[in-house]
Amino acid sequence: MNLIDGKRIAQDVVAELASEIARLEGPKPSIAFIRVGEDPASVSYVRSKNRTAETIGITPLLIELPDTVTQEELFAQVDKLNADPAVNGILIQSPLPSHLDEQTAFNRISVEKDVDGFHTSNAGRLVQEDPDGFVSCTPAGILEICHREGISLEGKHVVVIGRSLIVGKTFALLAMQKGPQANATVTVCHSRTRNLPEIARTADVIVAAIGRPGFVTPDMVREGAVVIDVGINRVENPSAKRGYRIVGDVDFQAVAPLASRITPVPGGVGPMTVAMLMKNTFKAYKLQATS
Amino acid sequence: MNLIDGKRIAQDVVAELASEIARLEGPKPSIAFIRVGEDPASVSYVRSKNRTAETIGITPLLIELPDTVTQEELFAQVDKLNADPAVNGILIQSPLPSHLDEQTAFNRISVEKDVDGFHTSNAGRLVQEDPDGFVSCTPAGILEICHREGISLEGKHVVVIGRSLIVGKTFALLAMQKGPQANATVTVCHSRTRNLPEIARTADVIVAAIGRPGFVTPDMVREGAVVIDVGINRVENPSAKRGYRIVGDVDFQAVAPLASRITPVPGGVGPMTVAMLMKNTFKAYKLQATS
Repeated sequence: MNLIDGKRIAQDVVAELASEIARLEGPKPSIAFIRVGEDPASVSYVRSKNRTAETIGITPLLIELPDTVTQEELFAQVDKLNADPAVNGILIQSPLPSHLDEQTAFNRISVEKDVDGFHTSNAGRLVQEDPDGFVSCTPAGILEICHREGISLEGKHVVVIGRSLIVGKTFALLAMQKGPQANATVTVCHSRTRNLPEIARTADVIVAAIGRPGFVTPDMVREGAVVIDVGINRVENPSAKRGYRIVGDVDFQAVAPLASRITPVPGGVGPMTVAMLMKNTFKAYKLQATS
Repeated sequence: MNLIDGKRIAQDVVAELASEIARLEGPKPSIAFIRVGEDPASVSYVRSKNRTAETIGITPLLIELPDTVTQEELFAQVDKLNADPAVNGILIQSPLPSHLDEQTAFNRISVEKDVDGFHTSNAGRLVQEDPDGFVSCTPAGILEICHREGISLEGKHVVVIGRSLIVGKTFALLAMQKGPQANATVTVCHSRTRNLPEIARTADVIVAAIGRPGFVTPDMVREGAVVIDVGINRVENPSAKRGYRIVGDVDFQAVAPLASRITPVPGGVGPMTVAMLMKNTFKAYKLQATS
């Protein structure tokens, strides 16, 4: 079967972290979640991250702020967590209310505690290939999938569709790094690309992260290519309980028979994100312990 | 004629800056050069930058430190320049003696005065497409050439050969940005790339920055492609006065007839670097004046 089971891989990562952390003597790693307001998706995401942290033995700390919070008050919270040696990682759940600038808020987090990898300095450390930097969790999860499934990127042509900061561009930077788990030839395509099908057909690995349901069709995929679908799109479906279903950026039914390996949506890249957040938190813990 | 005259373009940039700066009232922009030791190439580079600054009306300040300088002493100098409101840009000439870590030194420069664009935060700002960031001078010079020569990158396939931080990777990030002067589809190839000729032949624009003389041969170039040669390689030449001559990464004689436009070496991208340093310095001056 050519399906990549992201849920199982994420469970493996979580189980390995739990086992490593169980062996630690002294204080356990800790992550603080800052959630502003009551956006239902944010409430649900933070709850899920919180639960996974607990499962692993990482101590979660939940800071809930009203959506009227000022930048000054938010920063005071971040500063307190930055200064607290018991806190190893800090995550500000996106989106923030429109009166708060997200990048400014992310940059307030100490670069050593920025386990979401959104700090400008961590973006720079990725470019500069600093191994102590933090890479944002979805792109890091894609690389982890490749590594664990024996999909080498070395010398391969990786075509990334979508140039977003949180997925496409960051994964491109990861895949082109020097090193045995990277060393890929990388092409970044996007909405302005001409001849996208032609370029995509030259790919050994396609990473679809353009945010359009069913965008990747069979004419874009060479037989035997690996297809990683990062899309999470809602499409109307009156027969579904919620009135919609979640689909990826790949026309799965049509593309799957061509691909040597393919990630489904849901159950592919999605589950990796929280697992990699925990991995980043443990990395922060270890780096802080030795510094 | 399909030759791109980088020397003339650089002179245009310099002349425009000189004219803008001549109209300024009050204090002129200023750049500080820190040179450690007496490496002849460094002496020559700094002298050239110093001279161009003077031509433009940017006040240069030369700090010469012995190659025995400690990191602490170097940092004390940088801190003094960071704190001096009369200094808008600071450049530490590479290479530093081996007992000094270059990236650590670059990161000591205030991010607002980092006109060489080597600070980790400026690498991150490029990834995040922050228009107030500083982009390192050679990649910025390539984009300036394209812009001034009417070479649109919009939707074009740009193949960058070489993934160095100072040229290949940084230019790739520039060319894939959103915006009318970018929006390119970008492929980064390098020493580990398989089928490099095949991929390069799909390029509308080839940027050669791999550091190997004559690497780009006609079989890698589609007729009508734009070829930008960033290589600066010494090859032995007993009949030359110095015993060597400078050649690029492109087999110029063989490739030029195929290319719609091509930069020579020397006289192509090379002269742009100092011009863009001055442009960055003026940008720093303007940003500091309004902040």
